Amino acid sequence: MNQSNCMVAQSGGPTAAINASLAGVISGIKKSGKYDTCYGAINGILGILNERYLNLSQMIPDEKNLNRLKVTPAMYLGSCRHKLPDYKDDDSAYVFIFNQFAKLNIKAFFYIGGNDSMDTVLKLSDYAAKIKSDIRIIGVPKTIDNDLCMIDHTPGFGSAAKYIASTMLEIAHDTFIYAVKSVTIVEIMGRDAGWLTAASALARNDYNTAPHFIYLPEVAFDKEQFLTDIRNKLKTLNNVIVAVSEGIRDKNGDYITASKAVADQFGHQQLSGAGKALEFLVKENIGVKVRSIEINVLQRCASHLASATDQSEAFALGEHAVLLAEEGVTASMVTLTRTSNTPYAVAYDHAPIRGIANEAKSIPREWINAHGNDIRQELYNYLYPLIQGEVSLTYQNGVPVYMPVPHLKPDHVS
Amino acid sequence: MNQSNCMVAQSGGPTAAINASLAGVISGIKKSGKYDTCYGAINGILGILNERYLNLSQMIPDEKNLNRLKVTPAMYLGSCRHKLPDYKDDDSAYVFIFNQFAKLNIKAFFYIGGNDSMDTVLKLSDYAAKIKSDIRIIGVPKTIDNDLCMIDHTPGFGSAAKYIASTMLEIAHDTFIYAVKSVTIVEIMGRDAGWLTAASALARNDYNTAPHFIYLPEVAFDKEQFLTDIRNKLKTLNNVIVAVSEGIRDKNGDYITASKAVADQFGHQQLSGAGKALEFLVKENIGVKVRSIEINVLQRCASHLASATDQSEAFALGEHAVLLAEEGVTASMVTLTRTSNTPYAVAYDHAPIRGIANEAKSIPREWINAHGNDIRQELYNYLYPLIQGEVSLTYQNGVPVYMPVPHLKPDHVS
Repeated sequence: MNQSNCMVAQSGGPTAAINASLAGVISGIKKSGKYDTCYGAINGILGILNERYLNLSQMIPDEKNLNRLKVTPAMYLGSCRHKLPDYKDDDSAYVFIFNQFAKLNIKAFFYIGGNDSMDTVLKLSDYAAKIKSDIRIIGVPKTIDNDLCMIDHTPGFGSAAKYIASTMLEIAHDTFIYAVKSVTIVEIMGRDAGWLTAASALARNDYNTAPHFIYLPEVAFDKEQFLTDIRNKLKTLNNVIVAVSEGIRDKNGDYITASKAVADQFGHQQLSGAGKALEFLVKENIGVKVRSIEINVLQRCASHLASATDQSEAFALGEHAVLLAEEGVTASMVTLTRTSNTPYAVAYDHAPIRGIANEAKSIPREWINAHGNDIRQELYNYLYPLIQGEVSLTYQNGVPVYMPVPHLKPDHVS
Repeated sequence: MNQSNCMVAQSGGPTAAINASLAGVISGIKKSGKYDTCYGAINGILGILNERYLNLSQMIPDEKNLNRLKVTPAMYLGSCRHKLPDYKDDDSAYVFIFNQFAKLNIKAFFYIGGNDSMDTVLKLSDYAAKIKSDIRIIGVPKTIDNDLCMIDHTPGFGSAAKYIASTMLEIAHDTFIYAVKSVTIVEIMGRDAGWLTAASALARNDYNTAPHFIYLPEVAFDKEQFLTDIRNKLKTLNNVIVAVSEGIRDKNGDYITASKAVADQFGHQQLSGAGKALEFLVKENIGVKVRSIEINVLQRCASHLASATDQSEAFALGEHAVLLAEEGVTASMVTLTRTSNTPYAVAYDHAPIRGIANEAKSIPREWINAHGNDIRQELYNYLYPLIQGEVSLTYQNGVPVYMPVPHLKPDHVS
């Protein structure tokens, strides 16, 4: 038996496009013809440690399955948030993993994920170099947060941005119906970077100016300035809509949350987010009708409103990762570069994993206005191409048709 | 000048289909050829009291505009929550309104709304009878809550139900990715009736059994029973997903909320909903990973995922209201009856407004299982046809194209 196989896994938080990258890897492997079997490790790197694999060559046998996988939200293979130790401290996991690779004749390992997952790619690459393994280890980027370095933007971001922009427009329609003054706070994901919150600006059109303010983690949040912004806007507009990142902080770096000493009727305590905190600020200090809306996980799993641009790039990155492995590249992440903005075009490339893992990319300050309460045209221009194009979905019984996920099956107990 | 005009207005909370009914009224008026101008009162009945009208015959001149209006969420004409006094106590508003009708040669008035709006239709009808006015007054139903009487289901409900079912399926995909036990609580609108929460069951398919429990306002909520449900389910399933109505109450009729003595870092108090309350219950008593998701206003304004069935029925009801007025019907609400479930078919009719205003329709207890934690097949069968069919939307710049709403315009100050 002289098989040549490969393995793929997914890790971190879900996106609407992460399965498109998985489909891209599977497609790339089929095209290459150099691998006998493509294994999927279940729940990321944990799947290897627990010897839990799927035979993807059998499970996704044809184009129809591949296309369905492409539009399915979250991780077909499941995910994990598992940090490998430094192999210098404890190499037992590494020994086990590379033994598994040897046992299954794995020649290439593709890990689809965000910052933390790229840390795993880095550590596996370092260990592979140490033991002089020739297994190709390639990271395939994804994160709705768009905060990975060395890449123009991350797969998953465009779909989340499209959902946020469309939802913001719909919230604007929903908000402006009453002839009473009101403030609506929309809390959007993004703990350290404001890319997703900035994307709410894409809801603006020739009749809609909402969101009227955008507050980002990149700018220290000033409570008094916020209240002044709102008070001034209410002078000329009945209904003010605010987009705010969950990750806004004050000038001391403390998160703005409505968190302290919160107890309910059962005597429990809770943590609430930036949206609630701003809601209270308006309620207590301005006194108009106010509500907050947390878009929550819907922004990362609403594949029914995925960006076709995002999905096709995620797929292409998966395919390109396989090409790289064939060319002998390892210890790298597949990347994309924007070669032109109008017309929008990208090129696929790769970068050493060392400069990517554990780094994060924020919005450049010069792409945010001086007051720190809105974005500049440069950022709008950057964001705009990423949400273009609608994906073609099939509906059955009134809901979207996605790929049946193994761990969702009724008989699945893990 | 011997004009014959009519007027239409919208009231209450938004839905994804309420503008389809407005489009139906406008279309019906065009087809009838009996009216010169169709006026739209801005912000419901308040528009008449404040003499603020749009000339809809000019603003929606053609089929293209009508089709765009049909898919636009919330109220094109704005809304209000204004309760008219009993005319026997104070008839000044009535005198003013009917003077306005006379001045504008209004022969028919169509009011699109839910329970409260039908109260306005009833009161105007009673006053019209008293002064022997021959102005036809017709209510056109809408409410995502599906709690109007004398109608099989309400326009707006099917679209919200489709959004909830699709979103629940996407949340299931998002939830099942980690190999750790978790509970996800999804809070859905519905203060007094559980129809919307029940619709989450439409997310179930051959691989997805979520939501695993459904708690409705129709059944007294028992904290211990809930915890037992969750504990038992976690024995056979890693990730349990719960759908809960915002309106669940205990056996004393008190709302289940996480509300008491809640203070944040700014010293404010807050009210939180049933979802947060259940989240705390699980956190304190079971101790697994738990999160709550409030679908919030998205369920009522997400026109990008409207039900084609819902939209076409809402439109047909608007057209039928005009027909009724022509036939001399007044003091009524246009209704629909389900004449067959397989294949699904409806007939349009009308019912006296007196039996509808201020009444509410709950889910029959026999459509809920004995334990009160799930729905029965009968309810599934009732719900299923209402979310069928996808609406055709145009996208521009990556977001849906809706009808520019007058009060959303940048230069609009009301």
